[in-house]
Amino acid sequence: MANLINLNADLGESFGAWQMGADAALLDIVSSANIACGFHAGDPLVMRRTIRAALQRGVSLGAHPAFPDLQGFGRRRMDIPPAELEAGIIYQIGALQALAVAEGGHVSHVKPHGALNNIACANREVAETIVRAMLAVNPELILLAPAHSVLAATGRQHGLTVILEVFADRAYQDDGQLVPRSQPGALIHGADASLEHVRRMLDAQAIISQSGKQLPTKIESICVHGDNPEAVATARHIRQGIEAAGYSVVSFDHYPY
Amino acid sequence: MANLINLNADLGESFGAWQMGADAALLDIVSSANIACGFHAGDPLVMRRTIRAALQRGVSLGAHPAFPDLQGFGRRRMDIPPAELEAGIIYQIGALQALAVAEGGHVSHVKPHGALNNIACANREVAETIVRAMLAVNPELILLAPAHSVLAATGRQHGLTVILEVFADRAYQDDGQLVPRSQPGALIHGADASLEHVRRMLDAQAIISQSGKQLPTKIESICVHGDNPEAVATARHIRQGIEAAGYSVVSFDHYPY
Amino acid sequence: MANLINLNADLGESFGAWQMGADAALLDIVSSANIACGFHAGDPLVMRRTIRAALQRGVSLGAHPAFPDLQGFGRRRMDIPPAELEAGIIYQIGALQALAVAEGGHVSHVKPHGALNNIACANREVAETIVRAMLAVNPELILLAPAHSVLAATGRQHGLTVILEVFADRAYQDDGQLVPRSQPGALIHGADASLEHVRRMLDAQAIISQSGKQLPTKIESICVHGDNPEAVATARHIRQGIEAAGYSVVSFDHYPY
Amino acid sequence: MANLINLNADLGESFGAWQMGADAALLDIVSSANIACGFHAGDPLVMRRTIRAALQRGVSLGAHPAFPDLQGFGRRRMDIPPAELEAGIIYQIGALQALAVAEGGHVSHVKPHGALNNIACANREVAETIVRAMLAVNPELILLAPAHSVLAATGRQHGLTVILEVFADRAYQDDGQLVPRSQPGALIHGADASLEHVRRMLDAQAIISQSGKQLPTKIESICVHGDNPEAVATARHIRQGIEAAGYSVVSFDHYPY
Repeated sequence: MANLINLNADLGESFGAWQMGADAALLDIVSSANIACGFHAGDPLVMRRTIRAALQRGVSLGAHPAFPDLQGFGRRRMDIPPAELEAGIIYQIGALQALAVAEGGHVSHVKPHGALNNIACANREVAETIVRAMLAVNPELILLAPAHSVLAATGRQHGLTVILEVFADRAYQDDGQLVPRSQPGALIHGADASLEHVRRMLDAQAIISQSGKQLPTKIESICVHGDNPEAVATARHIRQGIEAAGYSVVSFDHYPY
Repeated sequence: MANLINLNADLGESFGAWQMGADAALLDIVSSANIACGFHAGDPLVMRRTIRAALQRGVSLGAHPAFPDLQGFGRRRMDIPPAELEAGIIYQIGALQALAVAEGGHVSHVKPHGALNNIACANREVAETIVRAMLAVNPELILLAPAHSVLAATGRQHGLTVILEVFADRAYQDDGQLVPRSQPGALIHGADASLEHVRRMLDAQAIISQSGKQLPTKIESICVHGDNPEAVATARHIRQGIEAAGYSVVSFDHYPY
Repeated sequence: MANLINLNADLGESFGAWQMGADAALLDIVSSANIACGFHAGDPLVMRRTIRAALQRGVSLGAHPAFPDLQGFGRRRMDIPPAELEAGIIYQIGALQALAVAEGGHVSHVKPHGALNNIACANREVAETIVRAMLAVNPELILLAPAHSVLAATGRQHGLTVILEVFADRAYQDDGQLVPRSQPGALIHGADASLEHVRRMLDAQAIISQSGKQLPTKIESICVHGDNPEAVATARHIRQGIEAAGYSVVSFDHYPY
Repeated sequence: MANLINLNADLGESFGAWQMGADAALLDIVSSANIACGFHAGDPLVMRRTIRAALQRGVSLGAHPAFPDLQGFGRRRMDIPPAELEAGIIYQIGALQALAVAEGGHVSHVKPHGALNNIACANREVAETIVRAMLAVNPELILLAPAHSVLAATGRQHGLTVILEVFADRAYQDDGQLVPRSQPGALIHGADASLEHVRRMLDAQAIISQSGKQLPTKIESICVHGDNPEAVATARHIRQGIEAAGYSVVSFDHYPY
């Protein structure tokens, strides 16, 4: 059981005539897809095609709900009252669920996107809103959340199955939070460095900060990116590296929770 | 069984700060609600509140999918390729389903909105796209469609349960289609005239055209409107009138199909 | 010159099929219109009709730019980078300018809407972004801003003509800011109370807070509302009251700056 | 004067986080830019950056208004009533004008986009709506329209300066209309074939159809594309080829009308 690991990535981020991401390549690498639900990216047809491509490869499906901000790609903080935010998250999950059903699949997890995720990692009210939305739709939904986040803790408190993830290409601070992108060393560059970063954390079963501090945590999923060819190559390298180290990469549909 | 009848209306057509329709009053009159799904009207919070209010009154829930055209309220023809239209309809149904589940209910029917409905009543390709979307999500979904429409025939051919509706306030042509709004007499004004129109069609179990021609059809639902206080009064008058005539108004959740 | 006063209101806030506000009634009362530009309300046709109706009554035209958030009516804080916000404000002003030209008029002022205005009243970076946008389009544009606001000060520092407004139906704190709506007494109810509030401030040429503290300021415009019949009646009462007190209500096109 | 020719391309079609087109490369080739105005593509910041880049290279600015359909990239027919369509076109032109002014430039032409352009080339009512919008904003605006189109004829009848364009990579039918993309030979592939196509039409001062039929017309502009690296190479080849043939490529700001 210690040898199972999940690999997740954000997918289905094209919109209408605009393409984004190397979805086909990435779907051969990851085991779970966080699929944009139309509020920050994705449109119904993009969502359906992403679902179909994921199911063909045994990749499990997750909703990637966001603030309603297409122009800002869901990366801009919006102050949305809890009741409205909750309804919006339910809406997005439901839209993806129906498209998944149409393709013979189902949505197994939820991972908030962008600014919504960032806020939920630190703000209990927003985290609780997300958790409430998930419980209202389906209490069996898995919450995919960063290790040592308020979001993860909130999900667990309310009885959700929470899968803890670490980021392959981001450095951590001593408090377990990501080094902000504005600071030096925030991003870990290169396939080897990323794999090394992941391997050290898996071996230690801890987040390891820039300064070397260890914050013990289960690590059940690794988040990789596919924004550019190099990112895809890094993701592939990480998968090969952790498989070589004895891990089996599994989707959320086969994980023994 | 001959004495059961459904009353349906379009509801949940507010959006953000904009109010539309006398939903509370209308929900006390109808037995099934066609709920806007965010593409032409409605937003997630409006949808949820509409669902909640409907469930409190035993009104069954229907998705009211539309073209993605908020500014045009879904009333403008759009040429959307079938695959994209199908995915968009699934998306809308799914969003409503999840919000219904969140309120302890479920979506029992689908009725296309506005231009989408008008086109589907005459165009087989569009009708089949709608039917495909419904079958993909849930083959148990009821299609609420105008009597003598291509949409109704298409739904039946593909195995959907189809409920046939007539309009309380619209005159019919000899071919069973609505008199276009641009022509004189298209609209039936006044509560008494509308009730009389409905009563005659129910008694005859036929659409009765302006010229008096009868086109036999089952009539299982009556569509009423609530755009203004007069419309609500007319709807109430119709309900009282058909109940006085011995009909029981039932939702789709209790209809013996 | 001391006897001239401007009356402004937010107008053109309908969208597509959704009506909002008593524009026709309000246009007979105010002398300047803050016209929604499509980002939080208004669509091109609503904008054009509002412009036409305003010009027919000699009401001067102002752009009412907002965050791009139709669903939230521009009332939700959004963190938009300065360059993007500036371009968005220019876009909105330009759209209104062209529609004004099409109707034989011109845009004479700008008043930010909702959350954008609230933030700009306290945050210098956002205030400067708005001012930069105005200077880039037309340095002759008048900035309509609350008295004692950072926005007003910023506009003046950068050479814009700034018109200072007070609110007829809102109470003030001792620091000159509005009492938040969440606190008791934030809203001044009733036509007589609102007129009295306005009259006292005009007489004192000062903002007068709830506690009675006076903060001296020129008062060149009074903001009224038209959300409901009572608000329109209050606005009419205020106009009649200040005219009875010897003020002439003037648009920005006739103001002696 | 016979040796002057304009080269135009659609530009600024990115949106938010989504990139589209090789704008930088194409701006070194063309002399006039048709800039998306936010309805089918482009957002205020993309528009401003496109304007800036165009002005740096002496490329003249044109509005590229479209149906309000971001998801469909303005390629889907929408039935929009004339008054609403006209207001929407004015809105888009005005937004671009203000951003152009902010960068020290001005909008010199208008070219409708996608489905709107296709319809206007054959439908007089839609063509007149576009022309009315342009006349309302600025009668000096140049209409860039396909040779032998209803749009061009309509513009000329109403007194607009009309610049006639041909397409470098599209074959023509005997009636002067484009061969539909669904038919064989609709697209002209390869840089040499495209240049040859252009050269033959310029030499003949006529549209030359697939069958060899010549339809005499002034040819004042050539439309090229930049959707992919090959398209950019073709556009560059065409510019070099017509310059080698003695033509000077000029923007609309230097054209002797």
